[in-house]
Amino acid sequence: MTAPRILLFGWWMLLALLPSPLVWGGEGPSRGTGDLGVIVERGAGRALVVNTSTNRIIGQVDGLGDLSHASVVFSRDQRYAYVFGRDGGLSKVDILRGTLEKRVVQGGNSIGGAISQDGKLVAVANYEPGGLKVFAADTLEPVADIPAAYGDGKLSKVVGIADLPGDRFIYSLFDADQIWIADLRDPKSPKVEKFSGIGKAPYDGLVTPDGRYYLAGLFGEDGIALLDTWQPQQGVKRILANYGRGEEKLPVYKMPHLRGWAVAGHHVYLPAIGRHEVLVADKINWKETARIPVRGQPVFVVARPDGRQVWVNFAFPDNGVVQVIDTLTGQIVQTLEPGKAVLHLEFTPRGEAVWISARDDNKVVVYDTASFAKLAELPAESPSGIFFTSRAHRIGF
Amino acid sequence: MTAPRILLFGWWMLLALLPSPLVWGGEGPSRGTGDLGVIVERGAGRALVVNTSTNRIIGQVDGLGDLSHASVVFSRDQRYAYVFGRDGGLSKVDILRGTLEKRVVQGGNSIGGAISQDGKLVAVANYEPGGLKVFAADTLEPVADIPAAYGDGKLSKVVGIADLPGDRFIYSLFDADQIWIADLRDPKSPKVEKFSGIGKAPYDGLVTPDGRYYLAGLFGEDGIALLDTWQPQQGVKRILANYGRGEEKLPVYKMPHLRGWAVAGHHVYLPAIGRHEVLVADKINWKETARIPVRGQPVFVVARPDGRQVWVNFAFPDNGVVQVIDTLTGQIVQTLEPGKAVLHLEFTPRGEAVWISARDDNKVVVYDTASFAKLAELPAESPSGIFFTSRAHRIGF
Repeated sequence: MTAPRILLFGWWMLLALLPSPLVWGGEGPSRGTGDLGVIVERGAGRALVVNTSTNRIIGQVDGLGDLSHASVVFSRDQRYAYVFGRDGGLSKVDILRGTLEKRVVQGGNSIGGAISQDGKLVAVANYEPGGLKVFAADTLEPVADIPAAYGDGKLSKVVGIADLPGDRFIYSLFDADQIWIADLRDPKSPKVEKFSGIGKAPYDGLVTPDGRYYLAGLFGEDGIALLDTWQPQQGVKRILANYGRGEEKLPVYKMPHLRGWAVAGHHVYLPAIGRHEVLVADKINWKETARIPVRGQPVFVVARPDGRQVWVNFAFPDNGVVQVIDTLTGQIVQTLEPGKAVLHLEFTPRGEAVWISARDDNKVVVYDTASFAKLAELPAESPSGIFFTSRAHRIGF
Repeated sequence: MTAPRILLFGWWMLLALLPSPLVWGGEGPSRGTGDLGVIVERGAGRALVVNTSTNRIIGQVDGLGDLSHASVVFSRDQRYAYVFGRDGGLSKVDILRGTLEKRVVQGGNSIGGAISQDGKLVAVANYEPGGLKVFAADTLEPVADIPAAYGDGKLSKVVGIADLPGDRFIYSLFDADQIWIADLRDPKSPKVEKFSGIGKAPYDGLVTPDGRYYLAGLFGEDGIALLDTWQPQQGVKRILANYGRGEEKLPVYKMPHLRGWAVAGHHVYLPAIGRHEVLVADKINWKETARIPVRGQPVFVVARPDGRQVWVNFAFPDNGVVQVIDTLTGQIVQTLEPGKAVLHLEFTPRGEAVWISARDDNKVVVYDTASFAKLAELPAESPSGIFFTSRAHRIGF
């Protein structure tokens, strides 16, 4: 029988075994990551890590640069948040440890990105220099650079990026009136498929939740460019053309965000640019089926995950209001005033709650979507985008 | 200035601070849980914990009882798997630590369960004693007991359970020809809504991914019972009635599993009982639109998350085959032979891969769904169900 080895040690040797705060921080806590998320504090260059089971802030990560138009995607294991900053910064945040794992400044001006179906590639859509840059998700090492060249060598701003099945990315060229699909299955030699003449000035886009249809909103004309990515040989079609025809145009106070477009049942709910209306189109034949009058110019039009409700926020001067449409009746069933300058809203994965950022009241408000009761108010410095980890499992986010 | 307090301690005091292996085990590893899952080893009463990023087995948990018809749901944070055993056992498994957190034997015979929208309640559908039992997800303490009483006090087997938004559960009473919706928003006084005369012998059911429609397959007659849970006052309708009319009935070798029913685009793909066909119905008007001849009697008919493919496995004697339908053309595009006695298949959250269990070859095979290349083979003892944590974020699972 041997004596416990510990008795042979001096106490100073134990110091080496004792976990230092640094080591502990290195390992991080042990917990599930399915109910976590990130709130962007746009002015502070900071991300808050939140828990949607307890409605609490559980951490914060600084040093993310200019987050004035930031968006976020998540790693396949839901541990890391990739934050796309306006300044071209791409930050990899460990939401378990609450630390900044790595940061690269990959461009001069960027408003969004996407992560590939297999989770191995992160793509950034750049305004400056115009094009797509692709990075390894684990190291943020550059993998591919696809300039958005058109005409006689000009570079277009890239907007409306989304992932497609097959490790592809789809996006629009604002200045070139084009839609491109970049296939990164072999990252060393990406294949790019180009669709031109799709309509004037595509300014944002989305894919339907099944990854099949890509829709690009047009700023230069009323209407939406539609591509069936299962049948790309059919080319880009126009839907909802001239939805404002013959009517006086209103000044546009804020561009809608199309990634917020909502699909509920077999209908798509779309913000009309510059109009106090939500447009409804049938996803089978893409005809307009209804227009729902709302309080102001819609910015985000987002379906609750079960599709029974569509929530809408608005541009100035109606940006303190959020309205809820019942998709069964097409009626507005609730008007809320969460706070000043509502910038974004995000549903919990199965839709029992919604989180809403009120930038000028420095808070995020959480509502029960069945009763509309306020569940929590969380302090945040000029909060903008809210992103939950369930996005990691979705196509087109 | 004070001396570091550590210097005032004897070395023996440090022992109390040192994390013992037990404490460390109690904490478990620090990692994301979005790419984890569970494989049921039905004969061994064991669950394997797997990682879908690396295609590896990373842990195992024993002592789960009779898993001959087991199913699994996940906690809201994606840390815990709730395993429903045939013997009425309800086990809470910590997939981060790879340990059995708690186990209760709550009934005599059970084939499935569900977790509420808010993640706080786990409901078990029991054959024996017939009814629904509801437990607190954190402690597994009993919360509610809803016997499936009908007629003169008999109890019906409960089948086809699924969660609905609003902390409700919907399920069918096999012996009573009824569908019930239990509202657990106030768990101490559940409200039950009952629909009777829905058709003969409902044997399984599902809700569409949006949580709106409940479909119960009927064993006593050809056809499906349909309830629009947004408009329950319209009652239960019959769809696909008499799909085998006038044709000779084949012996049914294995009951289809309806939770595997597939919704792709605006079509639903359904296994025809006892026939070598997959039925296709339009989700707008619920009319039959096509029948696709397949190799055998379908058991699971499951859409890839993007809906472009539907994968089908079969009852004996065709249970070594899996076929893939292209939903755009309606044609079978691939026939695979993963191994003997294929029992289940599960797609990765965004559908780039599928895991298939081959019970009698004691293995799980992983395929790339774009190229159909085999990515991995994992040893498992009589594997049956495969469940990934992304189910935590879905309605109706």
